[in-house]
Amino acid sequence: MSNFELIEFERITDDILGCTEEDCLSGLKFLQLPNRDKVVNLVDNLFQIIYPGYFLSRSMKFYNLRHYLTMLLEDVAYHVHQQVLLVLRYRQDIETEAEREQQAQEITHAFIHVIPEVRKLLMLDVEAFYVGDPAAENRDEIIVSYPGLRAVTVYRIAHELVKLGVPVLPRIMTEYAHAQTGVDINPGASIGKHFFIDHGTGIVIGETTIIGDHVKIYQGVTLGGVTTRGGQSLRGQKRHPTIEDNVTIYSGASILGGRTVIGHDAVIGGNTFITKSVPPYTKVSMENQDKVCKGEEDEI
Amino acid sequence: MSNFELIEFERITDDILGCTEEDCLSGLKFLQLPNRDKVVNLVDNLFQIIYPGYFLSRSMKFYNLRHYLTMLLEDVAYHVHQQVLLVLRYRQDIETEAEREQQAQEITHAFIHVIPEVRKLLMLDVEAFYVGDPAAENRDEIIVSYPGLRAVTVYRIAHELVKLGVPVLPRIMTEYAHAQTGVDINPGASIGKHFFIDHGTGIVIGETTIIGDHVKIYQGVTLGGVTTRGGQSLRGQKRHPTIEDNVTIYSGASILGGRTVIGHDAVIGGNTFITKSVPPYTKVSMENQDKVCKGEEDEI
Amino acid sequence: MSNFELIEFERITDDILGCTEEDCLSGLKFLQLPNRDKVVNLVDNLFQIIYPGYFLSRSMKFYNLRHYLTMLLEDVAYHVHQQVLLVLRYRQDIETEAEREQQAQEITHAFIHVIPEVRKLLMLDVEAFYVGDPAAENRDEIIVSYPGLRAVTVYRIAHELVKLGVPVLPRIMTEYAHAQTGVDINPGASIGKHFFIDHGTGIVIGETTIIGDHVKIYQGVTLGGVTTRGGQSLRGQKRHPTIEDNVTIYSGASILGGRTVIGHDAVIGGNTFITKSVPPYTKVSMENQDKVCKGEEDEI
Amino acid sequence: MSNFELIEFERITDDILGCTEEDCLSGLKFLQLPNRDKVVNLVDNLFQIIYPGYFLSRSMKFYNLRHYLTMLLEDVAYHVHQQVLLVLRYRQDIETEAEREQQAQEITHAFIHVIPEVRKLLMLDVEAFYVGDPAAENRDEIIVSYPGLRAVTVYRIAHELVKLGVPVLPRIMTEYAHAQTGVDINPGASIGKHFFIDHGTGIVIGETTIIGDHVKIYQGVTLGGVTTRGGQSLRGQKRHPTIEDNVTIYSGASILGGRTVIGHDAVIGGNTFITKSVPPYTKVSMENQDKVCKGEEDEI
Amino acid sequence: MSNFELIEFERITDDILGCTEEDCLSGLKFLQLPNRDKVVNLVDNLFQIIYPGYFLSRSMKFYNLRHYLTMLLEDVAYHVHQQVLLVLRYRQDIETEAEREQQAQEITHAFIHVIPEVRKLLMLDVEAFYVGDPAAENRDEIIVSYPGLRAVTVYRIAHELVKLGVPVLPRIMTEYAHAQTGVDINPGASIGKHFFIDHGTGIVIGETTIIGDHVKIYQGVTLGGVTTRGGQSLRGQKRHPTIEDNVTIYSGASILGGRTVIGHDAVIGGNTFITKSVPPYTKVSMENQDKVCKGEEDEI
Amino acid sequence: MSNFELIEFERITDDILGCTEEDCLSGLKFLQLPNRDKVVNLVDNLFQIIYPGYFLSRSMKFYNLRHYLTMLLEDVAYHVHQQVLLVLRYRQDIETEAEREQQAQEITHAFIHVIPEVRKLLMLDVEAFYVGDPAAENRDEIIVSYPGLRAVTVYRIAHELVKLGVPVLPRIMTEYAHAQTGVDINPGASIGKHFFIDHGTGIVIGETTIIGDHVKIYQGVTLGGVTTRGGQSLRGQKRHPTIEDNVTIYSGASILGGRTVIGHDAVIGGNTFITKSVPPYTKVSMENQDKVCKGEEDEI
Repeated sequence: MSNFELIEFERITDDILGCTEEDCLSGLKFLQLPNRDKVVNLVDNLFQIIYPGYFLSRSMKFYNLRHYLTMLLEDVAYHVHQQVLLVLRYRQDIETEAEREQQAQEITHAFIHVIPEVRKLLMLDVEAFYVGDPAAENRDEIIVSYPGLRAVTVYRIAHELVKLGVPVLPRIMTEYAHAQTGVDINPGASIGKHFFIDHGTGIVIGETTIIGDHVKIYQGVTLGGVTTRGGQSLRGQKRHPTIEDNVTIYSGASILGGRTVIGHDAVIGGNTFITKSVPPYTKVSMENQDKVCKGEEDEI
Repeated sequence: MSNFELIEFERITDDILGCTEEDCLSGLKFLQLPNRDKVVNLVDNLFQIIYPGYFLSRSMKFYNLRHYLTMLLEDVAYHVHQQVLLVLRYRQDIETEAEREQQAQEITHAFIHVIPEVRKLLMLDVEAFYVGDPAAENRDEIIVSYPGLRAVTVYRIAHELVKLGVPVLPRIMTEYAHAQTGVDINPGASIGKHFFIDHGTGIVIGETTIIGDHVKIYQGVTLGGVTTRGGQSLRGQKRHPTIEDNVTIYSGASILGGRTVIGHDAVIGGNTFITKSVPPYTKVSMENQDKVCKGEEDEI
Repeated sequence: MSNFELIEFERITDDILGCTEEDCLSGLKFLQLPNRDKVVNLVDNLFQIIYPGYFLSRSMKFYNLRHYLTMLLEDVAYHVHQQVLLVLRYRQDIETEAEREQQAQEITHAFIHVIPEVRKLLMLDVEAFYVGDPAAENRDEIIVSYPGLRAVTVYRIAHELVKLGVPVLPRIMTEYAHAQTGVDINPGASIGKHFFIDHGTGIVIGETTIIGDHVKIYQGVTLGGVTTRGGQSLRGQKRHPTIEDNVTIYSGASILGGRTVIGHDAVIGGNTFITKSVPPYTKVSMENQDKVCKGEEDEI
Repeated sequence: MSNFELIEFERITDDILGCTEEDCLSGLKFLQLPNRDKVVNLVDNLFQIIYPGYFLSRSMKFYNLRHYLTMLLEDVAYHVHQQVLLVLRYRQDIETEAEREQQAQEITHAFIHVIPEVRKLLMLDVEAFYVGDPAAENRDEIIVSYPGLRAVTVYRIAHELVKLGVPVLPRIMTEYAHAQTGVDINPGASIGKHFFIDHGTGIVIGETTIIGDHVKIYQGVTLGGVTTRGGQSLRGQKRHPTIEDNVTIYSGASILGGRTVIGHDAVIGGNTFITKSVPPYTKVSMENQDKVCKGEEDEI
Repeated sequence: MSNFELIEFERITDDILGCTEEDCLSGLKFLQLPNRDKVVNLVDNLFQIIYPGYFLSRSMKFYNLRHYLTMLLEDVAYHVHQQVLLVLRYRQDIETEAEREQQAQEITHAFIHVIPEVRKLLMLDVEAFYVGDPAAENRDEIIVSYPGLRAVTVYRIAHELVKLGVPVLPRIMTEYAHAQTGVDINPGASIGKHFFIDHGTGIVIGETTIIGDHVKIYQGVTLGGVTTRGGQSLRGQKRHPTIEDNVTIYSGASILGGRTVIGHDAVIGGNTFITKSVPPYTKVSMENQDKVCKGEEDEI
Repeated sequence: MSNFELIEFERITDDILGCTEEDCLSGLKFLQLPNRDKVVNLVDNLFQIIYPGYFLSRSMKFYNLRHYLTMLLEDVAYHVHQQVLLVLRYRQDIETEAEREQQAQEITHAFIHVIPEVRKLLMLDVEAFYVGDPAAENRDEIIVSYPGLRAVTVYRIAHELVKLGVPVLPRIMTEYAHAQTGVDINPGASIGKHFFIDHGTGIVIGETTIIGDHVKIYQGVTLGGVTTRGGQSLRGQKRHPTIEDNVTIYSGASILGGRTVIGHDAVIGGNTFITKSVPPYTKVSMENQDKVCKGEEDEI
């Protein structure tokens, strides 16, 4: 391949590395970056644990599920510990290696112990999916194939890590689900029981969203902020809406703003665009949305 | 890793399994669940058969395509038979093992023999994609890279299984395509010839939708139900619209309801929201949609 | 498996191949088709080069990054050369093998040398993502997990190949990104510096779109054509809008037409539907969009 | 590859298969043949069980050895059962499928329960290797790297299966060890405690050999039959020698014949060729072997 | 790993390459070396073809053996052609690329067509193994596990390539078998029908050996040259013995020299050392070997 | 698999582990055992470095050998360092972790720098193989396929580690070669230049053997100790013979004892058994060995 001899491979590498090592990227050293592949593997193992029997690798024999799950749990504990140790470097309030190690241990311990609770929540979600969707033939079909349930599962796992103060890792998890399902739930959001997502693709649920129980959401729904002009200065503020119990939001609806509250038992019609609060038991459609939305709105 | 000794792995496993074995999940035993990985593999092999030469694994030599395709077909027959056998357990009208085995054989036989017909339909779709998209440089590019064609291909395969009375399996197939393309076509939908999907992401086509020939659909289009309040009680009813021949539906349009019919040669503009029928040759845009839509609508 | 004996595997294969070899597909021979797997691998290697340290395969040791990157670059050069050689067959203006080989060499050389420049552009995009998104904890999180950045990265790589006259290959690259992220940027589009995509899913940016610097785009935005009725006859025409510097386009907005220009510093509200130009410094929302949009529009 | 077109692949296949299906091979159907790959895998797993910590696959985490070993044991049980079921077809005294299944279960049960006993015997062998070899730095080196111990380990495993009446399978196991170590111990041989093999290559220990405790054997030693002229008619007869306790046999010695007994505490010198019995406490070298060997010998 | 910084990796590489490129190795360029891995793969595929059903990779389905074998044959043809093309560079009598290509095609064609004949020979060998070994339970055991048959199989394959004038490749094949079995048969040797090797390890059969029909050979037997003092000057001379029909050679016997002929129906005892010819029907043992061996011997 | 329920997997595991943790094995903890797989990988990489171009993995592109070798060297350095660190635990003279780390660094550094020297020695061996074997068609054939050269290569690598005071690791390396080639060279032996091994299988070269330059050894040769009755008490003593320059030792010869010296230019005939010294220029055959061997011998 004599034609490659003219290519200045080494100079190009130096161009790239010159930039890398100095100032373009964050302060973490290369080997300390969280490993996306390992996080993905972690999530896949958690699916095997949470839905035993549904996501086994092909060659698994099944005569003793109990030992296998225990092994998987230990494996998950090992990798959660490793990855948490890595990402705790982003927490500037943890100063010493020893402190970081201790935090990682405590977080791992807490995370593993909360898994049965997460599973119970997800069983309620499976039920909500089955009851809510006339196209669902049975619950197995939902667990094996519904992208909405996949996204909710990853969210519920990642949200536990957010509650334990783990940075970056939860987002890698939910973006993995986002890539697979088209459903983008920020792990910081708070979502109640019996949650149902239909079809999924194009759903966005922002970081400070609060969602009650028995809520149904369809494809293309945005629960977002009204603006991001403030950029990083908005960090930490409530920028996304609150959805109370028993609300249904049809496809393509956008509900924006941190002060916007959709009252319980409301129905938000398809393709509506809502930046003010909606009272309980209200039905909003494209035609009447100006009449039923009330209250101040965030700057748009 | 002495820090893991405090984690009660076995108790957690028992918590999870306690729930599993009793009442949380459906009646199927673990080993009888359909295997998503094998279904995915099946679909990938069918792509190699239907578009010979385009989706070969890397190291394949090509000097005798005919033997290779025959091998693949046999392989597909074997796995279709196995997976159909599994999912026929969900069909409560099949009572004995022998009956199930016979059904599985008949379905496999019928499915394999319909593949050339499916391929012919897809060649017409490729043509529709090429003619419809000025950005398409040639037909190869469409086959190799267009997500819309990928989604339509998997739909046409899965739809044949629906017609043969196979449960669950078709949905696993189309949800695999959904994850890859963002296009969610329920395998129960009925779609005519020369179908064209542009860009794809966010398209939802519901279970009881009927689509004619020469229809074009853009990203973000929903052909859905008006409500799911009825949940499982709606199962089997026509809940999604009918789209007649030569209709074009631009991006973001929602057409909802089982009684809604879009007449032939109509053009539905972007971001419209339609729950009543539209006469033939009509052009609907956001401004005039109330005027041109007529007839009763399902409860919204 | 005696039940398979009734299946006419060989006749089915012949049905399929009969069609293949004659007239259904393009003129390229099988072995000359571009290999999607290799293109995908190429893109993955380019991620390792452009973001050194973030996308390494698991077992990589890191004590000499410089040699590793140089190896990867050589690898990329080898595969770009091979794939470009294949796809140049689609260019009917290149007539001899020798000419094709020379073009492939020149293109490979130019492509490898432009990589550091692409990386510099992407570092500016990373900055735009960080500044623009209050949910971003740090730049590492963006690089590892944001689908928007992934889509922009693949676009910037593929766009260089478009500029070098390479057919088909760039589209395979961006459709790979599309499948992973739900963001569909045609590699022919022209996009300025400091580009920011939030959430991503459902974004479509058409082939002849022109985008300035410091533009922000949210999920579900379409920058598209008004119609495709002309089909292949429109090939090469400007069919998609022009977005000037500092424009923000909120979720679900559709901006259509080759004559449509969004003036600099404009803000386009969510779910708007725009087919006429918008002056600089204008704020368009669903309520006022008819008032602020002006100029002729393409046939709709 | 037009040059391959002249090759009559299909005729050649038919030539081969014509022979296969009729009369050239044994009566077993193809799919019922024991699978060498699975037997090899079985042996490798047994090494992990018998020498815990020494033969783990690379990525194994070690924080809970107990669960891992239990999983491996279950895995071994599963595959032993499967392979035994296959090879019991060679036992003509087992007539019904049900009988075969029951035998396979009983054999599997007995085999798994004898593993700790096998391990204890092997720990004594490790000790014999360490004490016997001045070149051994420590016991770990022996376990990890000595081919003699590897061969003895596989022999002891396979011999248990012989005792349980399993055909074919034990021989596949010991021939696997033979290929790796050059030591060919027929699984039917009977070998006492504290057995030591140095260097190993070229050792042959025949099917009806009986070896006592504390025996040492060097490379190139044959414990064989004097003739095989009788062929299959000799099947079941004692054709190989008896070696009593505390015998040492140096390299290249051949001890042949079913009536040949090497008395306890004898030393057999290198390259000797012995077909008559040797009394206890005797030292045989090339020079004196005719004087010290006595008794009738099998036909040579 | 700062401690590696002191290692002068690049200087060491240059030391190695300085030697490589100039004068240490043969004249072939790197990329033209025969690929041992591909040859190994070739041999493994030939085992699947010659013993259909015994050496299938695990996941193979078996409902259509005929297509599978044909595919394998084509595969073998492809790789034989490629590797022969490479090694024909060592033949200095072939001068042009075109000549080399034509030779490679003719050789490939002839080799593929001789496979059924090789298989027939091997079926006779299987029979000889079964009849000759009282420890053999059945023919399947021999095919699956006997190293002697493995070595003979590879020899018979490689010998066909020698007959077709292929350099280097046959030796790579037999050395692969040598590594697996301890049996070193030079592919240039000539071996008759019904050949039987027991135990195998340590057998050496030299390049110019001639062996008749119904010959039996035990472990550790050498059929060698008397001296190699002449080195490369002896190339092409008959340096190894001739063994006539129905000869049996017991373990550890050495038969040396190009003029040495073992007459038909002779029996050569264990550990004998023979450099002169032996008449037909003679029985040679360590005691009587000087009396029964006669004729001139090569220089020793 | 209900039949497995009767198997007491957990009790069996406890039986095995009970023994493991307490007293059966050496004092090293599990995770500190040297990893045979990694050592094997190390050896394979060193083959790629020492014979550049001959042992490349299949898919390697070759346009820049220099970078690739440097990468491999770094890789080797990394793993040598890791494995040496592990095995230095067996050295009881190294007491602190810091000391161990420093030793490991120094050893790694020295080992990497001696590689070009090892390669030069091996090039001389290749020459000796070519000159000595009339069956060798060319040097490439020797490098790619001769087991003797493979064994010598691994010996020369491992011997360097012995010289650097590394325990256990060198033996794992040479036993890997032993398994592949049937040639067992203890890494502690000392071997001069231009060494030639023909056929190989069954060769044993003991730990304290000293071999001069231009020595040739054939299959089945033992350079061993006369007795191992002393067991571990003999550790460190010279127990194996000395072979001076230009000696040839034909197949099956045994030369035993630490005081035995084979004088330069001697020829040792096949199947001889020598325990006393042989003067220079002597030719020993089975007939005359008693006359030409002289001097005291070790106890036999």
